[in-house]
Amino acid sequence: MTAAPRVTLAQIAEEAGVSLATISKVLNGRTDVSPSTRARVEEHLTRHGYRRRATAQRAELIELVFHELDSSWSMEVVEGVEDVAAAAGLSVVLTVSGNRHSPAPDWIEGVLRRRPAGVVLVFSDIAAPHRDKLRSRGIPFAIVDPAGDPSPDVPSVGSANWSGGLMATRHLIELGHRRIAAITGPDDMMCSLARLDGYRSAMNAAGLPIDPAWVRYGDFHPTGGEIQARELLALPDPPTAIFAGSDLQALGAIAAGREVGLSVPGDLSVVGYDDIALSRWMSPQLTTVHQPLRRMGEEATRLVLRMAQGERPDNLRMDLATHLIVRGSTAPVRA
Amino acid sequence: MTAAPRVTLAQIAEEAGVSLATISKVLNGRTDVSPSTRARVEEHLTRHGYRRRATAQRAELIELVFHELDSSWSMEVVEGVEDVAAAAGLSVVLTVSGNRHSPAPDWIEGVLRRRPAGVVLVFSDIAAPHRDKLRSRGIPFAIVDPAGDPSPDVPSVGSANWSGGLMATRHLIELGHRRIAAITGPDDMMCSLARLDGYRSAMNAAGLPIDPAWVRYGDFHPTGGEIQARELLALPDPPTAIFAGSDLQALGAIAAGREVGLSVPGDLSVVGYDDIALSRWMSPQLTTVHQPLRRMGEEATRLVLRMAQGERPDNLRMDLATHLIVRGSTAPVRA
Repeated sequence: MTAAPRVTLAQIAEEAGVSLATISKVLNGRTDVSPSTRARVEEHLTRHGYRRRATAQRAELIELVFHELDSSWSMEVVEGVEDVAAAAGLSVVLTVSGNRHSPAPDWIEGVLRRRPAGVVLVFSDIAAPHRDKLRSRGIPFAIVDPAGDPSPDVPSVGSANWSGGLMATRHLIELGHRRIAAITGPDDMMCSLARLDGYRSAMNAAGLPIDPAWVRYGDFHPTGGEIQARELLALPDPPTAIFAGSDLQALGAIAAGREVGLSVPGDLSVVGYDDIALSRWMSPQLTTVHQPLRRMGEEATRLVLRMAQGERPDNLRMDLATHLIVRGSTAPVRA
Repeated sequence: MTAAPRVTLAQIAEEAGVSLATISKVLNGRTDVSPSTRARVEEHLTRHGYRRRATAQRAELIELVFHELDSSWSMEVVEGVEDVAAAAGLSVVLTVSGNRHSPAPDWIEGVLRRRPAGVVLVFSDIAAPHRDKLRSRGIPFAIVDPAGDPSPDVPSVGSANWSGGLMATRHLIELGHRRIAAITGPDDMMCSLARLDGYRSAMNAAGLPIDPAWVRYGDFHPTGGEIQARELLALPDPPTAIFAGSDLQALGAIAAGREVGLSVPGDLSVVGYDDIALSRWMSPQLTTVHQPLRRMGEEATRLVLRMAQGERPDNLRMDLATHLIVRGSTAPVRA
C-alpha cells in the first residue's frame, strides 16, 4: 500500500499497446474487452502500482464474502460487519462464493463493477490476481480469518487458536482428567492444527501421555463430533474428557456419549470452542472457549474503512484474545 | 401493479410545476432537491402510477432487510435469498434497520440510489410512502413474514401459524396430557396470536379447559421462555406439558424445568416452533413445528424476480405449510 511514483493512464496505454479507451474499460469492469487484452492491461497497471483515484461518487457499499453461511457463527461475524458499516453510512453486500480457501473466480468481476469502499472476506486467503485487481482500483480488503491461516501480506483479523486449545485442555487437567482426547477441525485448516497443538502443549506440560488414537479430525459440524466421539468412546480404555474443537462438535460428542449411556458431565466432560449464542442454553450448558467472532467482523471492517481513507495498517495481522468460559459440561473426573 | 395510462415525465413536470431536470433528480435519488419539492413530485408520480423504465444498465442487486439478525433463524432466510439471487446473477445487499414493523425512514434513500432489481423485507409491513417510492421506480418488493401479519396489498410469503399451533397441541393431547400451557411470542405479533389460537382450538376440540394462567406471552428468545415457564411451574397445579411457541423459548422452558428438578420429557413435555438447524442437536432433541424459513426466503425472492420481469403475482399472499416433527422433548403423560 505504498504510494507508487505517479504514472498516467496514457503512459500505461502506450506501454501496453492499447487505447486509453480500452484501459478505461478494464478499470470500469466492462465486459467488451478480450481476456488477453484485459490480462495485459492488468499486468501493466499492477507493475506501476496504479491506483484508481476515488470516484467523485462516494462509495456506498462494503462487500462481505463467505464460503458458507450455515455455521452457527456466521451470523455473529455478519452482525459485527453490519454494525460498523452502518455507523459509517455504508450498506453491506453479502456474497456466498467459492470454498473456504478463496472466493470463486467470477466473484471479483461483480465487485469491480460495484466499486465498494472495501472488501471483508471470511476466508483464509484471496487469490493473487484478485488482490492485484482490487489494489489497482484502490479498493482495500481485509480477511476475517477464523481458519487461522494468515497470508503474510494480507491484512487480517484472527483469534488466538493455540491459546484456546491450551486453556481448554488445562481446564480438563485441573479437573483431574488424565485420559483426554481432542477432536479438532479439518486437517487442512490452520486453526485446527493450532488448537490441537495447544492441546498437545497442555498435555506435555502436565506430563500426560497422548495416545495417538485420542487425536481426531472432524468437520466443525455436529455430525463430525458425533462420529469421532463414538469411536473414541468405543476404545478399550476410553477418554474421560474430550476437547471438542467447536461448539457444534461438542453437541455431537455429547450426543455420542448419551448414546452409550454416559452422562455429561458426570461420566464424560466435554469442552467446546466458539461460544456461539446458544451455548449457554444447551443441556448441559457448554464449557467452551470464547472466540470473539462479532469483534473480528467489527475490527476487519474498521481496518478496511481506515485503509479506504488512506491509512496504512501498522500491523497486517491482528489476533484477538480467546478465553475459557466454564459452564456445565465439565466436572471433576470420577474417582 | 396495473399498467396505468402512459403519461410522460414532461406532463408530470408541468402538472407539478417543476422542471424536467427536477423530476429526473427525484427519480435518481439525488439529494439536491428540497424535501417539499420532492414530496410534490412523488405525489404526482404516484397519482399517475408512473413506473420508471428499466434502465439500460441491468440491475445487479437484491436488497434484503431485517430488523434484527440475532435470532437463530435469520441465517436460514438469508441462505434462501442468497441462493435464488445467486442463481439469477444478482448480489444481495443485507441491511439491518428499523423495528419489526418497518425499516427506518432513511433506509429507502439508499435503496433508491442503488436501484436494485427488487427488495425482500423480513418485516410485517413497509410504510406506505416507501411503497409509493419503490412503485414509482418500478422496483418490486415482497415481504417474508414470519410475524404473520399480512398487509392485504403487499406481496408476502408467510407460513401456516395457526395450523402449527394446532398440530403442536394436538400432539400433546394425544400423548395424554390434559394440563397443557402455551407460551407464545409478543402479543403485538400476529403469528403469536395465530399459534395461540391454534392451541385454543385444539384444546377446545378435545373438550379440555384452559386455565387463563396457562396462557403466556414471551419474546421468542430463550429468556422469555425461561421466565414464563418458571411461573407456570410454580402454579399450585402446574401443567405437565408446554407448547413453547419457538425453539428458543423451548430451550428456556427446558432450563426452567431442570431448575426445579423436572426431567424433560419424563416429567414435562415441551414442543418448540421453527425447527432451527440445531434443534435436533439439543438434549433432548426438540419436538417442534417446522417452519420452512429457508423456503420462505427463496419464494419471496422468486416472487420479486418474476415481478421485476413484468409478471403480476396471481396471489399477493402465499402461506407455506408447517408440519410437526416429533423428537425427544415430548412423552406420554405420567400415569
